[in-house]
Amino acid sequence: MAFNKRIKIKSLLENASAGEKATLMGWVRTKRSNKHVTFIALNDGSCIQNYQVVADPARISEEILKKANTGASIKVHGSIVDSQGAGQQTEILAEKITLLGEADPEKFPIQPKKHSLEFLRENAHLRVRTNTFGAIFRIRHHLAFAVHQYFHDRGFFYVHTPIITASDAEGAGETFQVTTLDLKNPPRDEHNNINFGEDFFERATNLTVSGQLEGELAALALSEIYTFGPTFRAENSNTTRHLAEFWMIEPEMAFYDAEDNQDLAEDFLQYIIRFALEHCKEDLAFLDKRAAEEEKEKKAELRSDMGLLDRLEFVTQNEFVRISYTEAFEILKDSKPNKKKKFTFPIVDWGTDLQSEHERFLVEKHFKKPVIISDYPKAIKSFYMKQNEDGKTVAAMDILFPGIGEIVGGSQREERLDKLTERMEELGISQEELWWYLDTRRFGTTPHAGFGLGFERLVQFVTGMGNIRDVIPFPRTPGNAEF
Amino acid sequence: MAFNKRIKIKSLLENASAGEKATLMGWVRTKRSNKHVTFIALNDGSCIQNYQVVADPARISEEILKKANTGASIKVHGSIVDSQGAGQQTEILAEKITLLGEADPEKFPIQPKKHSLEFLRENAHLRVRTNTFGAIFRIRHHLAFAVHQYFHDRGFFYVHTPIITASDAEGAGETFQVTTLDLKNPPRDEHNNINFGEDFFERATNLTVSGQLEGELAALALSEIYTFGPTFRAENSNTTRHLAEFWMIEPEMAFYDAEDNQDLAEDFLQYIIRFALEHCKEDLAFLDKRAAEEEKEKKAELRSDMGLLDRLEFVTQNEFVRISYTEAFEILKDSKPNKKKKFTFPIVDWGTDLQSEHERFLVEKHFKKPVIISDYPKAIKSFYMKQNEDGKTVAAMDILFPGIGEIVGGSQREERLDKLTERMEELGISQEELWWYLDTRRFGTTPHAGFGLGFERLVQFVTGMGNIRDVIPFPRTPGNAEF
Repeated sequence: MAFNKRIKIKSLLENASAGEKATLMGWVRTKRSNKHVTFIALNDGSCIQNYQVVADPARISEEILKKANTGASIKVHGSIVDSQGAGQQTEILAEKITLLGEADPEKFPIQPKKHSLEFLRENAHLRVRTNTFGAIFRIRHHLAFAVHQYFHDRGFFYVHTPIITASDAEGAGETFQVTTLDLKNPPRDEHNNINFGEDFFERATNLTVSGQLEGELAALALSEIYTFGPTFRAENSNTTRHLAEFWMIEPEMAFYDAEDNQDLAEDFLQYIIRFALEHCKEDLAFLDKRAAEEEKEKKAELRSDMGLLDRLEFVTQNEFVRISYTEAFEILKDSKPNKKKKFTFPIVDWGTDLQSEHERFLVEKHFKKPVIISDYPKAIKSFYMKQNEDGKTVAAMDILFPGIGEIVGGSQREERLDKLTERMEELGISQEELWWYLDTRRFGTTPHAGFGLGFERLVQFVTGMGNIRDVIPFPRTPGNAEF
Repeated sequence: MAFNKRIKIKSLLENASAGEKATLMGWVRTKRSNKHVTFIALNDGSCIQNYQVVADPARISEEILKKANTGASIKVHGSIVDSQGAGQQTEILAEKITLLGEADPEKFPIQPKKHSLEFLRENAHLRVRTNTFGAIFRIRHHLAFAVHQYFHDRGFFYVHTPIITASDAEGAGETFQVTTLDLKNPPRDEHNNINFGEDFFERATNLTVSGQLEGELAALALSEIYTFGPTFRAENSNTTRHLAEFWMIEPEMAFYDAEDNQDLAEDFLQYIIRFALEHCKEDLAFLDKRAAEEEKEKKAELRSDMGLLDRLEFVTQNEFVRISYTEAFEILKDSKPNKKKKFTFPIVDWGTDLQSEHERFLVEKHFKKPVIISDYPKAIKSFYMKQNEDGKTVAAMDILFPGIGEIVGGSQREERLDKLTERMEELGISQEELWWYLDTRRFGTTPHAGFGLGFERLVQFVTGMGNIRDVIPFPRTPGNAEF
């Protein structure tokens, strides 16, 4: 017989009215009792709100009520009634409570008190049962869904690019090797090198750092595509901004130039943030308060002018500033912090890469808006970016967000075979390995463009969480692959 | 200046009417000329239909028309007019054609003729430009979108479970190792074993074979979740049914028992197939014809009773048959092929696993319907499945589809700590490594269930493609990690 005959708390709050019967299932968040009555705050994860269960000890056994501690799982059957107390409109008057699973209060780690984020990271298997992480992962879901909705509605096709690959897309960043060889005693060739010919794929393979190159192949057939999958960096970066395993969204569009690319990226970012604002009101309100409390603990000069919700509204309602690298360079060169030598990396010569401190100055101090910087010096960008007429810059763009820095990186791609191979030669990138990539420039090449969005950076921005490890369920970082 | 000022052919077919001006961009599929006119069939990947471009040599230069060969990329500006020819309602009378990218007819591999699927696999970077693969990948997109839509509408949350993991979820199948150690000269401990303490994660790690265990953690907080991500098997299986890298959908639901799980799986499968039927009419009509032609080449006794579309309609309109393993065993034991010793693996004793030949007999010959088999002998199923009262079986289920075999595998999970650890001990599975999994049975455990759907198997079923390598853009199989 089917067991799942219940109403979720989210539906109950939206639809139920006093007088109806209902069955709820969920986990006890808190319990408080007096002689006459026990109140249980029940949460089932469908929304941040708990639902109040009112248990009359004359009706519900002491045995059950004693065990309905924080973390325990229960099934409640009863009548929905108008609530006498503040904080909720209705509550359930329990006729029967079944204990599904206990939670020993001496042992259950997630007690109703403030836990440090670090403690909760160590208990990532249970942290989803807190208000903060419940909210984060519901918002994460809605952002992911909005990504699919946005592209689907516009006729983009979702493409799964390979995770295991023999090519290192950008020559960017260190990669994880993937192998089935016996590491203790791998086969070797006559020069004592590892003989990858005996490996699973008969060659050396690694985890992808980007699906872009394969995405281009699909775009040059289906017009407009996007990827949404895991990517990997084996960088030994123990920061609040880096993960070894993270999710990327990479749209790629035939017949787009650099401006089309910027238009799409701006519209896309505004759409998905607006989607979260519309569909995650309660969760965002909770995180907005949480962020405000965190803010209070900071020194006055480090506090943000805007709250979390203000910031999200602001981004969806204002056009992004668009400037070239050269304009950004001039602004930075003439800026107060540069003149006063406050930057760790002083801005002196055109051509140097912008550091996080420069990006934050532009976004948070100078423009106070999201900024799209375009046309970077070609020496600091990837081989596949379209070379501009000036011979010095490429049609790249980065989008910078307050508090986060770079959230999107993209470019028009170099569609001209001769320019592309010339640049590959300069950089020592093998044309033989990328024969298939070059084929798209040989056969029916066309202007095209794309960008990459780090999904966790976006979730950080929308939830206001300072540490990227708190916006992915089970973070992978140097020394950490638990769960 | 923005370049992408065009209308996609899909929109044009849906909306445009004679008399309007339009700009199209796409790739030439075919070209035919006579003295008075050149006809170009243009495709932009937005749909399977080509759009007919009519070029008057008095207006469009010979130079351009000569180069507008199959595979070339062009931009066409002109007027939409009612078509004189059969096969289309409207066409575009070209006023200007710009050649964006040539395709040398001597070198471009995808010429307008029949190519073998094997040839196209070797040219996977270009095969998306064919009718067959364009259709397959548009359908793949729609199926993926339907997955997200279905779960989102029902309050399930999308959870990204880790790809790199230190635990081998099921003890099932061989895994790919993930490492940053120097393979040529890895660090060793005093026993000459590899010292994984110096590896990136400070332990041995591999690619996930399933997100289920982590999915359960999330479900036991958020109630209903699903995963949709890549999973990996390092099995040396060179078959038409196996990939080393494939995508899995794994819903996991708290408060569900085995029957709830079956109800969800059946409803879910019918929904996404119906979604494809509604949204991919032209692509499916094309593949239906393709499948019918393939069928003709088979021997009469191997031919299917139903065409592709018939089969899809049939699955969405009929309830799945639900039987227990024991009932399936009895049917098979008494079946003609068993009595006539036609099965490679004869059915003799209760407890043996069902092979592909048995599954196909049940689905294609006996019931002629999708079949859900439940309550398998515990010895042939995983440790985490709920043990039934009979002491012999577990609350597992497999869903079998015609032509595909197993498309879904799932179970109610063992929520009782004592039963679970007992089974782990019997099977020699480390409780220490899975401490976090066991914690969910210690704290607020509850009946819960879930299943896994191999996405490529589903795409195979819906597209009618016989080889799984033809339904994922860049397949990974033993010896093959190209592109």
